[in-house]
Amino acid sequence: MALPMSRSEYDVACLTVRLGAIAQNYRLLRDRAAGAVTAGVVKADGYGLGAGEATRTLLAQGCDTFFVARLEEGIALRPVAPKARIFVLDGPRAASAPAFVAHDLVPILNSQEQIEVWRRAARGHDAAVHIDTGLSRLGLPPSELSVLAAEARQGNHGFNLVLVMSHLACAEDPASPMNAEQLSRFRTALAQLPPAPASLASSGGILLGRDYIFDLVRPGIALFGGNPQTATPNLFAVAARLTGRVLQVRRVDKGDTVGYGATFRVERPTTLVTVALGYADGLMRALGNKGTGAIAGQKAPIVGRMSMDLVTLDATDIPPASVMPGAEIEFLGDTVRLEDVAAAANTAAYEILTLLGRRVRRVYEARS
Amino acid sequence: MALPMSRSEYDVACLTVRLGAIAQNYRLLRDRAAGAVTAGVVKADGYGLGAGEATRTLLAQGCDTFFVARLEEGIALRPVAPKARIFVLDGPRAASAPAFVAHDLVPILNSQEQIEVWRRAARGHDAAVHIDTGLSRLGLPPSELSVLAAEARQGNHGFNLVLVMSHLACAEDPASPMNAEQLSRFRTALAQLPPAPASLASSGGILLGRDYIFDLVRPGIALFGGNPQTATPNLFAVAARLTGRVLQVRRVDKGDTVGYGATFRVERPTTLVTVALGYADGLMRALGNKGTGAIAGQKAPIVGRMSMDLVTLDATDIPPASVMPGAEIEFLGDTVRLEDVAAAANTAAYEILTLLGRRVRRVYEARS
Repeated sequence: MALPMSRSEYDVACLTVRLGAIAQNYRLLRDRAAGAVTAGVVKADGYGLGAGEATRTLLAQGCDTFFVARLEEGIALRPVAPKARIFVLDGPRAASAPAFVAHDLVPILNSQEQIEVWRRAARGHDAAVHIDTGLSRLGLPPSELSVLAAEARQGNHGFNLVLVMSHLACAEDPASPMNAEQLSRFRTALAQLPPAPASLASSGGILLGRDYIFDLVRPGIALFGGNPQTATPNLFAVAARLTGRVLQVRRVDKGDTVGYGATFRVERPTTLVTVALGYADGLMRALGNKGTGAIAGQKAPIVGRMSMDLVTLDATDIPPASVMPGAEIEFLGDTVRLEDVAAAANTAAYEILTLLGRRVRRVYEARS
Repeated sequence: MALPMSRSEYDVACLTVRLGAIAQNYRLLRDRAAGAVTAGVVKADGYGLGAGEATRTLLAQGCDTFFVARLEEGIALRPVAPKARIFVLDGPRAASAPAFVAHDLVPILNSQEQIEVWRRAARGHDAAVHIDTGLSRLGLPPSELSVLAAEARQGNHGFNLVLVMSHLACAEDPASPMNAEQLSRFRTALAQLPPAPASLASSGGILLGRDYIFDLVRPGIALFGGNPQTATPNLFAVAARLTGRVLQVRRVDKGDTVGYGATFRVERPTTLVTVALGYADGLMRALGNKGTGAIAGQKAPIVGRMSMDLVTLDATDIPPASVMPGAEIEFLGDTVRLEDVAAAANTAAYEILTLLGRRVRRVYEARS
């Protein structure tokens, strides 16, 4: 178990979460999806930024529907949003179904087996059904829909169907033919089932346009400032800023090496700064020799491998007045953008955000 | 702030920490370093496995000296090990020095500036000095040692020097000439300073042999089952086992695609299992199409991209009796080894461990 950490002025690393940006991003998504319900996806601790604060922020914007992945996340969220509708993407198991009922959580039924579990444990209760239209991850394959459809026609599918959903595999890429293919399969599935609210779009799907909106949209990454379509400019406001502090400034000479494995060799007299942030804080190890920090708004490259607790940057080209022990360095925020960090680490913004926050003090800013 | 999660039978993912393995690994390291003090490095929440439990385990083995990275980690550890010596690698800042004294923490002084801070704030108190012998990360460069040496000869360096340490850059590779070079530089530095206990070796350094042991060794990764020299067999017992549960079993046909971006195309009728573990749980996204899970001791490849909360495996070659919803899948442990996970994710075991544990229930096993 992690020891309780004191959160004090001694902390050297800080994750500032702009709740105003989350609210602004929600409004933008809601405008794009006008006419549909815009839910908030706050799984994985609100994409790493804090599920409780994100949920309260969205509630204040009028959001009344939330999605989480795990049952435990739903149970934890219930006291934060006592009247909201909370969907749980994992769906129920026999052992967990009573907890769904007890905490008034709506399961996503992903398989015939989960449908049976829910019928037995919670007959007549609300549930959503997930149709797999091509992601091959969770959901009923269209071939299994006929059973459910027949039961529904006879009025005995055994639960109150409040949502039919599917999930896009390639919404990040508007040019992918997979999008239209999944849309077509989803429409075919809906036509088989009794009338119920439908949901296909997450953040990327909302940007695909009107055809993908249906009755309810489920944005996640865009709420938190991530760009759901990385080939086009990011429409969403920066919601997370990660900073560390310089522990030490060093001058090294040509020929010296930096970090584990001596992977970086200094080619000129160089000012190095070592900062108290490492991959144990969520700054991915893949950023070694590839990532960037910003001192007083000016970028400096990460040199050498990342350490668990430390990272070293070449600050030679930064004005010396800004380069001193205690100086703040941004690793994610307005200068070092989330999408650039993800690209440098050869991953997606989603992973960068969800790994944040270990051992890092979080500060929540309410202003827009 | 993360919502408090209920830790219950509903949890689908579990990290089992074998405290007996940590104890066994400690004894092996202590034997290798016979004659020296074998400290325990429990920074980054005990390499992700739990600093409190790891520390209690090491205390029971007679370990009385611990290292952490951050001041907050030291403050949190103090009540767990009230009588132990706790070194803090980050060293003090002017604002934080009084907290070192208040919690009886021994700072590592990494720079002339930190030495001055400590002299002013805690004159006469214990401190360690860190000499940089080639990692170019933290520590006094040898060129700055003369000042400290002269002051020490005059008996007025202003603190009680309890340890002189340095850190190896290439201990992972016994063939690297950097090791002997750093050893030589460390000996030269020690000769300049007043007699004090010396420490150069972490886990990898201990395996480099007697010359690198000095008076105190500081193993971290090996305590937790990581192999500090990846080119040779791992001597250390598995201390962490990560498991998830199957949410859904699906049969898909040739030509179907799996996951985001449709990066995996099925080439035969295939049994897919989708498991409730994702990169938000610390199973790195880089494992998509590269990593492995094990069902009933048999390996199955991860297919498609990793999702935030889910991962999909090809279980076609696993006996069907083992492939069912609720089945346990190992992603790290005795079958899927830490070093193999790190290799598949193109990173180091250190990062795999320190990213573990978000949203994952931890179970501590005491037996050896």
